[in-house]
Amino acid sequence: MSGFCNAHTHAAMSLFRGIADDMPLDEWLNDRIFPLEEHLTPEDMYWGAMLQIAEYVRGGITCFADMYFYIDSVCEAAKNANLCVALCGGSMSDSEGDVLRFIEECYSKYNTMSDRIRYFPGLHAEYTCAESLIAKVADFAAESGAKTYIHLSETLKEVGECTVRHGGLTPPQYLHKLGFFDNGGFAAHCVYCDKDDIALLKQSGVTPVINGASNLKLASGIAPVYSMLSQGLMPALGTDGTASNNAASMFREMYLFSCLQKEALKDAAAVSAEQALAAATEHGYAALGFPGGALREGYFADMALLDLSAPNMRPLSDIRKSLVYSADTSDVLMTVAGGKIVYDRGNFYIGETLDKIYAECEARRDRLISAL
Amino acid sequence: MSGFCNAHTHAAMSLFRGIADDMPLDEWLNDRIFPLEEHLTPEDMYWGAMLQIAEYVRGGITCFADMYFYIDSVCEAAKNANLCVALCGGSMSDSEGDVLRFIEECYSKYNTMSDRIRYFPGLHAEYTCAESLIAKVADFAAESGAKTYIHLSETLKEVGECTVRHGGLTPPQYLHKLGFFDNGGFAAHCVYCDKDDIALLKQSGVTPVINGASNLKLASGIAPVYSMLSQGLMPALGTDGTASNNAASMFREMYLFSCLQKEALKDAAAVSAEQALAAATEHGYAALGFPGGALREGYFADMALLDLSAPNMRPLSDIRKSLVYSADTSDVLMTVAGGKIVYDRGNFYIGETLDKIYAECEARRDRLISAL
Repeated sequence: MSGFCNAHTHAAMSLFRGIADDMPLDEWLNDRIFPLEEHLTPEDMYWGAMLQIAEYVRGGITCFADMYFYIDSVCEAAKNANLCVALCGGSMSDSEGDVLRFIEECYSKYNTMSDRIRYFPGLHAEYTCAESLIAKVADFAAESGAKTYIHLSETLKEVGECTVRHGGLTPPQYLHKLGFFDNGGFAAHCVYCDKDDIALLKQSGVTPVINGASNLKLASGIAPVYSMLSQGLMPALGTDGTASNNAASMFREMYLFSCLQKEALKDAAAVSAEQALAAATEHGYAALGFPGGALREGYFADMALLDLSAPNMRPLSDIRKSLVYSADTSDVLMTVAGGKIVYDRGNFYIGETLDKIYAECEARRDRLISAL
Repeated sequence: MSGFCNAHTHAAMSLFRGIADDMPLDEWLNDRIFPLEEHLTPEDMYWGAMLQIAEYVRGGITCFADMYFYIDSVCEAAKNANLCVALCGGSMSDSEGDVLRFIEECYSKYNTMSDRIRYFPGLHAEYTCAESLIAKVADFAAESGAKTYIHLSETLKEVGECTVRHGGLTPPQYLHKLGFFDNGGFAAHCVYCDKDDIALLKQSGVTPVINGASNLKLASGIAPVYSMLSQGLMPALGTDGTASNNAASMFREMYLFSCLQKEALKDAAAVSAEQALAAATEHGYAALGFPGGALREGYFADMALLDLSAPNMRPLSDIRKSLVYSADTSDVLMTVAGGKIVYDRGNFYIGETLDKIYAECEARRDRLISAL
């Protein structure tokens, strides 16, 4: 089958696996994640991304959209493993001029580097960015024709505070007003989008990226996937970062994409396995502009080879149902990225050895924790 | 670690994998499951159970509580693989006398057969059993000291119709009135139990068995696990049958056990990984009366050996958090049941070959479908 597209993630958060669980959201963010992130270096980012890439290829993921700091490090890691990568980051600078210059440089640099690398101007979220900065990025998008990338309506708190700050406008309405999505783009999470928000995303050509596992674990909510599909959007799927998931399993995401809707709508027929599979593959690739997400002439040879002889896949009465409802990463035998074998039955061909990756990541995790 | 206890399942439903998905609940049950079940033979039951057992040992499950027809076949399958099994079935007869005789015979026969086999008098559910039958099984439990097993409060429809039929009594209240739980027992699902129901289950010594994946996929609801734990119950975990899950992954069940509560309570700190792990191991073994669920002198050597060197388990900052939030069956290297290796890196030692099991199951699936 096609390899998976993990359309929203922060790869280097793999360093934080298992150190901030079962905590209230505020404490998780303010006492753990933000302080840890302050100490991240470009080298941390590289090794954290390499660890995450090892997990990706183990689970059949061949393409990812990464939104984090030091995107050069993530780009280098992705190139090692020949993965398709969409870099969606901005700069950590407090100066709007610096951020704009960074975005302009990245846009030229990464979009001419390789057909397996793309860059989208990204901002973290409405609640962490000044209006003037959002407007400037919107201007850049208008000039360049770039799609934009942002976290959107992840929590009820975010939506409520946005409406207070901006005269009753929800995050999609506010960003629309500033022209942020005039060339389309990507909105991660979209947990609290009502039908007007969804219509606006549709009208602007924005792809919602659904992160079911992360949203459950942080108690954020369940995105209105059924409504999105009904209103003609084609959501993509993402795992989000390891600190909130805590795995990079697109199988888990597909299961939740479908089954959380069944529960939310109290309709066991809502959101089929086929829709989940499309979200995990073709919708992500298509939205990011890569020729992939299906096995087709002219497309990238980004593929996952699955073991259909394992007991959880038998009898194989309907392969799509079984991929979504019965499979997990144990069924992935081999992953091929851009025609190159990157994972084969326990062996990783990603440019660094697992031993080296683990040693680097553990030392860096220790250093980061000691700074808490 | 200890092997998992899958405390609620219908093993032979593995034959139905992938043939009744994404359908409304009524259609699923009335047009597919019930008609298929009418044609099941003891041999179907045996081969279906063998397939499910292969999936169990692949995923570290060493003990299961099975509620289905032809329990002799399930018992034989479990013995092949040396798994711990609790047989919880009744008879398919319409005669109450026959059902009672069957229960009496099973109780004597299976409880003296092996220390790895137990039998509990079971009835399907309040809505499929006459009051006189429930009362007779309660009498048998009173005489024998047996714990009883039943499906309980799985859907809102079931609870509503029960209160109409029985003067406002919920299923737990109604069964309590009939003395069904006077010696304690097991209640599968418990999705719609309010705090009075939970108090009654606690008072009667009933173990709720939670089936998060099945309840999501059939759009039944989310069991109030947090309230159960708060009121002192120790829920066990089950996968339910393959037709509604569609896998036997205790990793998925643990993830949902914790994370669905976080979402339902809007509290990311609700129900910890440690609580999920206890539910998946020691609570199940303890409630079923088997010495297992932990690695301890005098306990069964029921064990799962996990690969902590896979990328999804690194860095290993907190092993319990990683087992619940990051692991899946890909991490299981070996499963040991009663001191005997039953699964080892792709090899199955369960008394039948996978090839034979698959051929039998596929032929039987074809026969069953052709009768629809």
